[in-house]
Order: sequence, then structure tokens, then C-alpha cells
Amino acid sequence: MAAEIAEQPAVLARLLARAPEIAEVSAALERRAPRFVLLAARGTSDHAALYAKYLVEITRRLPVGQVSPSTMTVYGVRPDLTDVLYVAVSQSGGSPDMVESMVMARECGATTVSVTNNGGSDLAKAAEFAVDLQAGPEIAVAATKTYTAELLGLYLLLAGGTNPGEAAQGLPEAAEKTLAGSDGVHAAAARYRFASRLVTTGRGYSYPAACEGALKLMETSYLSAHAYSTADLLHGPVAMLGPDVPLIAVVSPGQGGAASRPVVAQLRESGVDVLVVGDGDLPVATAGVPEELNPVLEILPLQQLAWRLAVDRGTDPDRPRGLSKVTRTR
Amino acid sequence: MAAEIAEQPAVLARLLARAPEIAEVSAALERRAPRFVLLAARGTSDHAALYAKYLVEITRRLPVGQVSPSTMTVYGVRPDLTDVLYVAVSQSGGSPDMVESMVMARECGATTVSVTNNGGSDLAKAAEFAVDLQAGPEIAVAATKTYTAELLGLYLLLAGGTNPGEAAQGLPEAAEKTLAGSDGVHAAAARYRFASRLVTTGRGYSYPAACEGALKLMETSYLSAHAYSTADLLHGPVAMLGPDVPLIAVVSPGQGGAASRPVVAQLRESGVDVLVVGDGDLPVATAGVPEELNPVLEILPLQQLAWRLAVDRGTDPDRPRGLSKVTRTR
Repeated sequence: MAAEIAEQPAVLARLLARAPEIAEVSAALERRAPRFVLLAARGTSDHAALYAKYLVEITRRLPVGQVSPSTMTVYGVRPDLTDVLYVAVSQSGGSPDMVESMVMARECGATTVSVTNNGGSDLAKAAEFAVDLQAGPEIAVAATKTYTAELLGLYLLLAGGTNPGEAAQGLPEAAEKTLAGSDGVHAAAARYRFASRLVTTGRGYSYPAACEGALKLMETSYLSAHAYSTADLLHGPVAMLGPDVPLIAVVSPGQGGAASRPVVAQLRESGVDVLVVGDGDLPVATAGVPEELNPVLEILPLQQLAWRLAVDRGTDPDRPRGLSKVTRTR
Repeated sequence: MAAEIAEQPAVLARLLARAPEIAEVSAALERRAPRFVLLAARGTSDHAALYAKYLVEITRRLPVGQVSPSTMTVYGVRPDLTDVLYVAVSQSGGSPDMVESMVMARECGATTVSVTNNGGSDLAKAAEFAVDLQAGPEIAVAATKTYTAELLGLYLLLAGGTNPGEAAQGLPEAAEKTLAGSDGVHAAAARYRFASRLVTTGRGYSYPAACEGALKLMETSYLSAHAYSTADLLHGPVAMLGPDVPLIAVVSPGQGGAASRPVVAQLRESGVDVLVVGDGDLPVATAGVPEELNPVLEILPLQQLAWRLAVDRGTDPDRPRGLSKVTRTR
């Protein structure tokens, strides 16, 4: 897991070099003039899909939904998907329900595209268009490099604009800097050494990092980590926060961060223990990177924290209990 | 909270008596021939929106998305909402970001409808169509009767078919039976008396009850309760389950339950402590009620459990710490 975390700047650079190839797929999708976008994914990839939701809503001004594959695979519904762009995101491309719902989406009239780390997978074969992330084999069960590759791949595929590859040029270096600037990770791991629960939060583009960070902490350190949009945090879940439940807030430059800052300050004032990822305890080097790509960087210190905390607690971050790499849900 | 839980059969019966009135709104929406449905909600109402997502996907075969209001209110995006039906669900109808995104959705071309417990609220006024649940004032901070009223209101509004009001006739009596048949609640509360974490799960129509049940337990008893779709449970979150983290599975008759049963059995076999809501420890009286309405019943024993557990633990279920009834997020 540590090696795969460190590999991310190189993986991102490799993927960026293939931006023109992905731009061709993007142009082909564009010609279909989709009016709605549906995203299908599970687990870590579902957080990449959540990122794509914000990206498409904000940059393309299209309505977006996250698919519940069960409506097609369990309830057998054949929806009317005319004018729909159906995007499935999966590291392995091997989960049977993802493949089955992709086949059905295509039959039901959607323009279909897969984003996977396996160009030869059943999911990639079932889709009309496919983006192969080529992040290299991921051995650790907790996904890291495939997650950030999914984010960048989705950005290159869906952000639109004249040249998203150009806009992302500074990303590998910013990732390098963010990973190197993580002195705070040791202190943060020490701080949570005996925590059994925590809450993560972020808003807008920072929300996917809060979700994925919580999942990494749960997968590797078996603590309970709840992720909430900073807007939702005040509806019910705030009752959970107390002296023994710390908050990790992802607060970056940009409009999501601006909306989160007052809520985080209010919670801190009320006595909640707060750690800030972004412009705080665990810094993120966002200079020269467009706001839409912040999520690729924000997750990096949280991956490092999950790994460090697992090691400090004496658990094996590479082989979490009960988990296998490909989940064969139906 | 206990009084409001007990009031639900009467609230449902009152709402059912107004089915013809809601059918008129439903017919007006139908004439707009929406091609995509967007749902906006926060907190408990977001679980009602999640229910509506399954309902529309399954019964109407339309693609559905859950809105992130922040893309409109924080990022200032004006999406193209032609052919979109925009449904906002809110107990109070008073949250500023819900009102603001409703105004924008209407300006951006959507057909808009609100489902609230306050027909005079800003949200109801901002929408072109409005369903007033008339569940009566809800005093407890943890929403119960407004949640089940939202579910039934959404069913009457969105289920389609010739006469959804007719199909729902058995619901108040089934709710009465389910509430009365809750002997297991005391034992379940005793079982979780010292639990600090638990996981809830369900699939398809049963997933919203898993989400809302987890929120109730967190709001009233300050334990950490994670909800996962049974399909997602095997992706990462299963690492959390262990000898000290029990699982509450919502398993009802129907296709969602059928898909969950083998996963739940597998987890039980691997040593996870499992409590079943539906056809198990906390029975749900679903006889004579269509599968699409099971979610109204499935939440009832979980509300009772949340209340009972809070009382047993010596916390006040009516006034959870840190929470107010209307959340004024921007």
C-alpha cells in the first residue's frame, strides 16, 4: 500500500501523457449530445463516481444520477435510457453486477463508457467506449493509485473545455509535493492512535475526499469513520460528535472550502477536536492546479494517514480482514 | 418521540384519505412527461428521497439522480433542466439552501414539486406544485412520523399505476400491527446497551430503512451506526465488522430481501452478530401491502429500538445534543 501511494505521481503523469487518446473518446461521447449522465460504481470507485457527479454538474451543467445497479440486476427493470450517458467506474472491471447492468444500460439505449484499470475486463468489453487507466497492477486490497487514476481519467473524459489535459499539467508535481509535505501525518496518526470513531467532512469537490478518506481509515484500521457533506453534518450526524469523536475536515481553496470554513469553525468552537486537510494540519499543494482537480490531491494525506495509523496500531494495511480485491456481488 | 412513533398509523390513514388530491398533482406532473427525475433533500428526508429513487427507477423506468444542492447554491451553476422533474423533500420546508436550489431549478426549466409537512413553507411556495403531508407538528428533534408520511406521500405522488391510493389501503393497519408486535425491541435494546458501533444493511427497497435506522440510532443514542447497501457491504466496509461490531439487516419479502439473504447468512456464518428486521428478530407485518410500501413499515421497529436504547442508556431521545429541528445551511 505504501509503495502504491508513493507511485501516484508517476501514474498520473503516465495517464496525462495519454490525454489526447482520452480526448478522442470524450469527443465521441460529445457527438452523442447526452442530456443526462448516470454513474455506476461501488466501494472506492463510487467515490470517484461521486467526484464525476460534481464535475459534470458544475462543468457541463447536466443533471446527473448515481445508479443503484440493483434496480436493473435485482428488480429486472429495463429503464428508458435514451439521451443518457452511462459511465461505469471500476478498478477491476470484474464485478458481475456492474457488468450485467452495463449490458442492460447499453441495450436500453444509453451511450456507455467504462473507466477501469483493466482494458481487457468484462466491463470494458461490455461498454461501447472504454478508458483504460493503465495504473499498473494494484496489489494492496485498499485501493489508492487506482482511485486517483480514476479521478484524473474521469476529469479527462468528462470535464469538457478545450484542453483538459493541458489544464492538468501541474498535477503530478503537485501530487509529489503533497506526498512529500506530509510531516503532519505522523502526529495525526499518534493523535488517533486509540480513537475508535471519527467523522470526516467536506463540501462540493472536497466531499469525495472525505468519503474516500473515511473508507481508507475503516478498511485499514478498523475504526468507524463516518463521512458527511459539511451541509448534512448539521442534520442529525452532529449529535455523534463529542469530546471522544474527532472531526477530519477537508477544506481546500475554492468555493466548497469557503462554504465549509464557517461550519468547521463553529464546531471547533463548540469543543469538537478538528484536524484540517488542505489549508491546515495536513497541507495539500494545490497551487497551479484547477479547483476541479483538488480531489486528486486531497486524498493523498488521508491515504498516508490510513497507512500510518494501521502500522502504528499493528494491523496489516495490505491485507485487511474479511476483504478480497474483487467483490463478486450479484 | 414515543408519542410521535405511536401516531404513525393515524397519520398514514389521514394522508391516504387525501390520495385523490395527491393523484391530481401526480396527473399534472404526468402531463409534463418528465424524462429524468432529480431529488433534493437532506438528513432524514434524504432517506425518503432515496426511497423515491428506487420507486421511480423501478415503477417508472426513468433515470433518477439525487441532487447535490451545493452545485447550484455554492458553485452557482445553472443547469439545463429541460424535461426534468425536480422533487424536493423536507419536513420543515425551511432550509435556505433547499429553497434557493428549488428557485433555481424552476428557473432552469424543471417541473418542480415539494413534499413537506408545512404547506405554507418557503419551499412549498417556491415550487410549482406542492404536497402538504399534514402529519401535524413534530416536536421531537428525531423525525419519525414525518419520515413515514414523506414515504407514503412520495409513493402516492410518484408510483404511477392506476390507483396507488387503493393499493396502499392496508398500510395503516399493517403499521399498527408492526408497532404492536415489537416485543423483540426490549431484547434488542438490551443486546446493544453497551455497543458503541454497529452496521445496518439492506438492499433495494430495504436500503432506505437501513440508512434511516442508522441515523435514528446515532441521533438518539450517540452510537456510531454505518448503513451500507448489502451489495456494497462486501467492498471495504466488511473489514469493520468483527466480534464487537454487530449487524442489523433489514430483510423483507421481495427481491431486495432475496438478494440480501445469502450475504447476511455468509456474514453470520463468519461470526458476525446479526439481528434481522423483517422476517426475523424484529418482525414487520407486510402481509397485504405491496413491496413498494415495505419501507414505511420496516423503519418502525428501528424507530422503537432507537427510542428504547436512548432511554435505557439514560439519554434524552427528544432532545439530542447539538441538534436543532430546522437546519439553516447555506
